[in-house]
Amino acid sequence: MSQTAELVAVGTELLLGSIANTNAQFLSKELSALGINVYYHSVVGDNPQRIEDAINLAKSRADIIITTGGLGPTCDDITKSSVAKAFGRDLVFHQESADRIDALFARASRQVTENNYQQAMLPQGCTVLQNNKGTAPGCIIEADGSTAIMLPGPPIECQAMFLDYVIPMLQEKTDGIISSRSLRVFGIGESAAESLLREKMNSLTNPTLAPYAKVGELELRITAKANTPKEASALIEPVEAEVRAILGDKIYGVNEDTLPSVCLDLLEKLNMTLGTAESCTGGMISSFMTDLPGVADHFAGGIVSYQIPVKETLLQVPSDMIQEHTAVSSQVAESMAKGALTALGCDIAVSVTGVAGPGYDNDGNPPGLVYIGLATKDTYKVQRFKFGYQGREQIRIASALSALDMLRRHLETL
Amino acid sequence: MSQTAELVAVGTELLLGSIANTNAQFLSKELSALGINVYYHSVVGDNPQRIEDAINLAKSRADIIITTGGLGPTCDDITKSSVAKAFGRDLVFHQESADRIDALFARASRQVTENNYQQAMLPQGCTVLQNNKGTAPGCIIEADGSTAIMLPGPPIECQAMFLDYVIPMLQEKTDGIISSRSLRVFGIGESAAESLLREKMNSLTNPTLAPYAKVGELELRITAKANTPKEASALIEPVEAEVRAILGDKIYGVNEDTLPSVCLDLLEKLNMTLGTAESCTGGMISSFMTDLPGVADHFAGGIVSYQIPVKETLLQVPSDMIQEHTAVSSQVAESMAKGALTALGCDIAVSVTGVAGPGYDNDGNPPGLVYIGLATKDTYKVQRFKFGYQGREQIRIASALSALDMLRRHLETL
Repeated sequence: MSQTAELVAVGTELLLGSIANTNAQFLSKELSALGINVYYHSVVGDNPQRIEDAINLAKSRADIIITTGGLGPTCDDITKSSVAKAFGRDLVFHQESADRIDALFARASRQVTENNYQQAMLPQGCTVLQNNKGTAPGCIIEADGSTAIMLPGPPIECQAMFLDYVIPMLQEKTDGIISSRSLRVFGIGESAAESLLREKMNSLTNPTLAPYAKVGELELRITAKANTPKEASALIEPVEAEVRAILGDKIYGVNEDTLPSVCLDLLEKLNMTLGTAESCTGGMISSFMTDLPGVADHFAGGIVSYQIPVKETLLQVPSDMIQEHTAVSSQVAESMAKGALTALGCDIAVSVTGVAGPGYDNDGNPPGLVYIGLATKDTYKVQRFKFGYQGREQIRIASALSALDMLRRHLETL
Repeated sequence: MSQTAELVAVGTELLLGSIANTNAQFLSKELSALGINVYYHSVVGDNPQRIEDAINLAKSRADIIITTGGLGPTCDDITKSSVAKAFGRDLVFHQESADRIDALFARASRQVTENNYQQAMLPQGCTVLQNNKGTAPGCIIEADGSTAIMLPGPPIECQAMFLDYVIPMLQEKTDGIISSRSLRVFGIGESAAESLLREKMNSLTNPTLAPYAKVGELELRITAKANTPKEASALIEPVEAEVRAILGDKIYGVNEDTLPSVCLDLLEKLNMTLGTAESCTGGMISSFMTDLPGVADHFAGGIVSYQIPVKETLLQVPSDMIQEHTAVSSQVAESMAKGALTALGCDIAVSVTGVAGPGYDNDGNPPGLVYIGLATKDTYKVQRFKFGYQGREQIRIASALSALDMLRRHLETL
């Protein structure tokens, strides 16, 4: 039977916005991979009554409750006592945990202050979870048909404890596994993709198919529940094939792929070097590429030709071409890409010239009008784009990703 | 009377751990600055009954409910209908929002698919909030003694809508005003700043002083509650003076200032143009600068000299200098900055050469070792940095911001 879990994060620092609840993201991803459904997250401050209420609510809705935070030595750390109360338990002293705290302090040549022993007070009858990355132990209460798992708040401690001790325990409780495969899609919006795939998405129950909008692109996730990885693959594969038949080469990769990483893979395969000539993107494409480790052999460099004289001197764009067609033109995009090829001594170059806004440029070109060029020794091409104005940043990102997508499509033909 | 707010994030992608609930962090910080207490966050999936239940629970506990997510065009986007149901309202068609969607699609030369008009279905009697960064409008229902504010899920859209429309509305609901002033600090960590300022921070109640760690830098926010803006300023000013006396020129700006924007302001004031020569930052500095609207008159361009031949040909770095000192050296940083000055025809240039990692470079230089150069016609300087290895991305960001800080400090002396 499918289990459900609910996450309760405890900590006023979350409610003040000092930190984001990244533990919830980590735990949700892990639980989903275990086939455990998570229907709710909640965050509550360091207040005994509100913690107890949140636990009682979670008990009424889920099989498994996982709390994060509030296990430490300060007077704000009241998760264990509040959860214990919701389960009608007392806290009792746990000698082994106290010994561990003594040993940790001794190793750091530090004096144990009395409040540290608060961390060794644990709910009666619980299973204690050792903290391999800090001093506060976690614990598990199983009662009233519920399982309450208390984990520390610092993400490093929370993650290690979950991976080391909680996953093995949960695996025993669940049947089967959840497996998912993400298709990375560029060049089609969320709503257009959904229009194409709606019938498919609605007809599926296992696996499921769902779109997630990312910055400038789209993820389509196929998720299967099965008894074994092999069974899950057998469920996912035909759906992937159907989606690929519909979206074709708009799908540029899977899972952890990004447009820059796919371009780098292709450059490596072809043993080619890339160069860039950027105007409105101002170095964003080269910055995306150089964020990849190991790019050094395949990225020669780039020229950010923001002002006209730089286009003329470093990229050899003819002055009269700019006069005649303006800097935002198909001719200039072509000339920039060819100029980059020579100036940078690379095998393939992409160029971008456009208007990021907010206003029209001095030649009357509107924000969102962007020309992207590509050149090799043997060939060149230019594409014109008209991005809807959603702000300077969005136009720049859309332009940079479109240039990488054009590069990817060209490299795939070689 | 002090108001309370509760946040309800809607989206199965949050429960699957695909994204973290960063909207909750942003909104919590903003609400706290307004003097509005947040006692609970919750996250619920794209399920009508669970959303309605979460809204009813929030109505029973808080004055103000803020939802994020689920306003888009797909069939998963059901926040408005579920919230409307909890308030006993229907959804009605809002012509103005539909017109706006038409206009946005027309501007992008794209076809409007029918599902996009779902975004123009809004709860009867609501106040509509225009989305300046996307297509889905937000809205506000005021009824049953509660205020429900529905914001879009994408953080850029959520933040803009909150800052533009919700803050002014909430300010009317609270007694007096909350006013804050942020000091922008570079070159000192959160814990070091806290050590210097701890006594001050603990002794203050109105205004308060709190540090917020940002990517590569620090914000110190002074927040006062008062009856008038003038009274608030009178509370804030002496605290600001004390903090400035302690941190000195580590404070580079206030409020919305960023290192790039402060550099641009100085370049404008001095009527100078900037150029860049980047190796390990790979175009990040030029990308940061060109993200600013109106930069065109003061940013000439940049050269990303990722591979050695580009350093030699475009920046005129002598080949034997690289042989003798390696590419990651003070000599090469100086030569790159001077070369950029000539190649780009700018008044001042910054250069970066270093190892972003993850491994040592081919010459045995360790990850995190970075040289930053600066040159004008009359002068030059180079600084050596050793960033602790926290990953490639962090080293690149720290390097780019350090270069801009060096530029800012130099321009301030002119």
